Amino acid sequence: MSSISTVFPKSTSFISQPLTKPHKSDSITTSVSFPSNSRNRSLRTSRVRAGLIEPDGGKLVDLVVSEPRRREKKHEAADLPRVRLTEIDLQWMHVLSEGWASPLRGFMRESEFLQTLHFNLLNLDDGSVVNMSVPIVLAIDDEQKALIGESKRVSLVDSDDNPIAILNDIEIYKHPKEERIARTWGTTAPGLPYVEEAITNAGNWLIGGDLEVLEPVKYNDGLDRFRLSPLELRNELEKRGADAVFAFQLRNPVHNGHALLMTDTRRRLLEMGYKNPILLLHPLGGFTKADDVPLSWRMKQHEKVLEDGVLDPETTVVSIFPSPMLYAGPTEVQWHAKARINAGANFYIVGRDPAGMGHPVEKRDLYDADHGKKVLSMAPGLERLNILPFRVAAYDKTQGKMAFFDPKRAQDFLFISGTKMRALAKNRENPPDGFMCPGGWKVLVDYYDSLTLTGNTRLPEKIPV
Amino acid sequence: MSSISTVFPKSTSFISQPLTKPHKSDSITTSVSFPSNSRNRSLRTSRVRAGLIEPDGGKLVDLVVSEPRRREKKHEAADLPRVRLTEIDLQWMHVLSEGWASPLRGFMRESEFLQTLHFNLLNLDDGSVVNMSVPIVLAIDDEQKALIGESKRVSLVDSDDNPIAILNDIEIYKHPKEERIARTWGTTAPGLPYVEEAITNAGNWLIGGDLEVLEPVKYNDGLDRFRLSPLELRNELEKRGADAVFAFQLRNPVHNGHALLMTDTRRRLLEMGYKNPILLLHPLGGFTKADDVPLSWRMKQHEKVLEDGVLDPETTVVSIFPSPMLYAGPTEVQWHAKARINAGANFYIVGRDPAGMGHPVEKRDLYDADHGKKVLSMAPGLERLNILPFRVAAYDKTQGKMAFFDPKRAQDFLFISGTKMRALAKNRENPPDGFMCPGGWKVLVDYYDSLTLTGNTRLPEKIPV
Repeated sequence: MSSISTVFPKSTSFISQPLTKPHKSDSITTSVSFPSNSRNRSLRTSRVRAGLIEPDGGKLVDLVVSEPRRREKKHEAADLPRVRLTEIDLQWMHVLSEGWASPLRGFMRESEFLQTLHFNLLNLDDGSVVNMSVPIVLAIDDEQKALIGESKRVSLVDSDDNPIAILNDIEIYKHPKEERIARTWGTTAPGLPYVEEAITNAGNWLIGGDLEVLEPVKYNDGLDRFRLSPLELRNELEKRGADAVFAFQLRNPVHNGHALLMTDTRRRLLEMGYKNPILLLHPLGGFTKADDVPLSWRMKQHEKVLEDGVLDPETTVVSIFPSPMLYAGPTEVQWHAKARINAGANFYIVGRDPAGMGHPVEKRDLYDADHGKKVLSMAPGLERLNILPFRVAAYDKTQGKMAFFDPKRAQDFLFISGTKMRALAKNRENPPDGFMCPGGWKVLVDYYDSLTLTGNTRLPEKIPV
Repeated sequence: MSSISTVFPKSTSFISQPLTKPHKSDSITTSVSFPSNSRNRSLRTSRVRAGLIEPDGGKLVDLVVSEPRRREKKHEAADLPRVRLTEIDLQWMHVLSEGWASPLRGFMRESEFLQTLHFNLLNLDDGSVVNMSVPIVLAIDDEQKALIGESKRVSLVDSDDNPIAILNDIEIYKHPKEERIARTWGTTAPGLPYVEEAITNAGNWLIGGDLEVLEPVKYNDGLDRFRLSPLELRNELEKRGADAVFAFQLRNPVHNGHALLMTDTRRRLLEMGYKNPILLLHPLGGFTKADDVPLSWRMKQHEKVLEDGVLDPETTVVSIFPSPMLYAGPTEVQWHAKARINAGANFYIVGRDPAGMGHPVEKRDLYDADHGKKVLSMAPGLERLNILPFRVAAYDKTQGKMAFFDPKRAQDFLFISGTKMRALAKNRENPPDGFMCPGGWKVLVDYYDSLTLTGNTRLPEKIPV
């Protein structure tokens, strides 16, 4: 995956002068008519400061125990009651440990859980608020609760029973599963992927507390070098002299419509007067549903897209966002945006029906396609972020390439849905020329071939990277 | 109901000097150890101002057309497309018209609906927020939507097709019923009373806009004189020279435990240095579930409680809160509190499991009994309100009266639940002496007798007032 690694040129010269913004950001949303649904957007964005955007709470949280103290902490952890983490728990611990959820310092206590469920925010001691829309909680069952007893600390252990973190000053409280699901997803219908994976069979208690993580989290899957922490991303963005950072969250293969949008966004930011807008292409790396393309294949596909020059490696940073995927639509898109603030992004591209999916029971989308961007633009604690709504791209038959949809000549455009794209790749058919670069398309075809070969359409084989 | 009317003494001399607060309110929650669950409560409450608390948004909304313009507006209304209101719609229109939901000026448009569902707040143009936790929306069906066509205004008509309001500058948007229910109640289980009454069979569209109500809303049920608007309540409270107003929301008969709590709250407020704390005893007057005691009987029962001297009419204002009841627990209690701010209350008494009920399907309470007061204390936009958690009162067998529960001698106390109370009254049995004044108890027994006589246990006969 050499071409992806080139997007992190180690030799880029360090830019020592402070980064300045050429324009007050309130002019950004008006002068080029990037629409905004917030009545207060212009007022709110005037708070954006020079340089990289500040992390939520003012300081990036880092919960990994510093090297000199690891030995001592591991000794402490060995003697504590143990809570075994699931794969998704581990992904959240990773998220917390690197400060993606700053200023959160561990799995939520009840007060944080309730604020998240009801208000999608956390009140800070200084009277300010930060956005926090998805519960980051750790469930335990009755037996584990009994084992913990009166202890004020527990150690968190991996599937091999190795302690990997300590949770301090713990609070155990009831896990109101139905209410958590209803308020997070806006439905309790059976078949929500994250719910079935991580909630339905989880314990009836939640345990919150302050995390001390014993070692940086690694997955040893060949992709760890792409898992940059928010601090590492900020360092990289500063090295590159970014004066605007626009984040693009994705969990699907990149096609030329996406690429057009990203390229066009950069052009617009340049027109606004930014000198060096950098794209953070940020595929989600945690849990995804069974019929999504797995991370390793997606990274391979993204590599081809960059190799083929569809995106410019010089102005693109590709990195993996370690969060699990909830498919919680308007609630989750806030989390996706908030986490990217912590990584230094001050522009966020939001598409149609972000983090959405089909209703698990009814024949319709779970969320209104416009609610995600509307809710995002109104969300408390995200006032500092500039929301860039996706312009709809489709295949323009007259040009033979992806282009922004023009409703005046709708008949010229072909919409290729994710379902359609997957069906084509499964059947080894080709999409129209110009839909996706050939190298990227081949990765998709290979992926679906690998499923057929293993005879497994639900749990695809992992490819070596 | 002469004794209730005495709680509005028309002769009380007007107090002309401005009302001042003897203490900064941040000392209130600490000096007498009224617990607060908000980390920022002391910081937040310091914003409370002298005099009656300001309404949300700074100005009390009044949507009733002024007398001289009514004729003209009625003419306009006659020519507009019509939307017929249900009984609950009418109750919400009443709520809106008098400014209980200030600064909301009509049924919610989509932006307000989404902010309510996701954040329980509304962003104002000045950058501030007010609390708004329950959707106040008007549903229409496909046929009504077609009839409205391109019109920018509709008239709202009563069950006799008489226009009673105009909705201006309308916006029609999808009614996401399942999501609305899930995010408001934290469950989608069948059997939620408000949902079955007002949502399940409602139309698939919502219509928002600015209200002009043609006449003050009256019910002609003998109780209209107790339906004081927020403005009328503020005038009454100012006349009485209130320097603290503590609101008590209820939808049940008052027993001596409630009375003890209210009396004790006043004593504490006096100890804090307030000179004239006034109790707003504020029974809910809109839709309630079939097995609740109907409003007319409750008002009769409250009358007896005041007659028997359990509460002091001189320091108590009894009035009807026109809102329907949602039984939406932590979400709804915020609405109950916010509306009382608009009526001038700066203290709000919150009990165990406020606005809660049994789970409609599972054998448990729908909400955690403590979540209501916790959520209330953290709710955005309610920072100005002092939350007074309920102390638990129970029947003290050693004293033969209701007293605050003392866990050190738990065996001395008898808890009489609402279910138990209703069972006793239905069976014409008496509760222990001192549980409720005899006059009040007799009203309850009479109510259940009336059900038996009519052979109807679900839709009780209305008693004349």
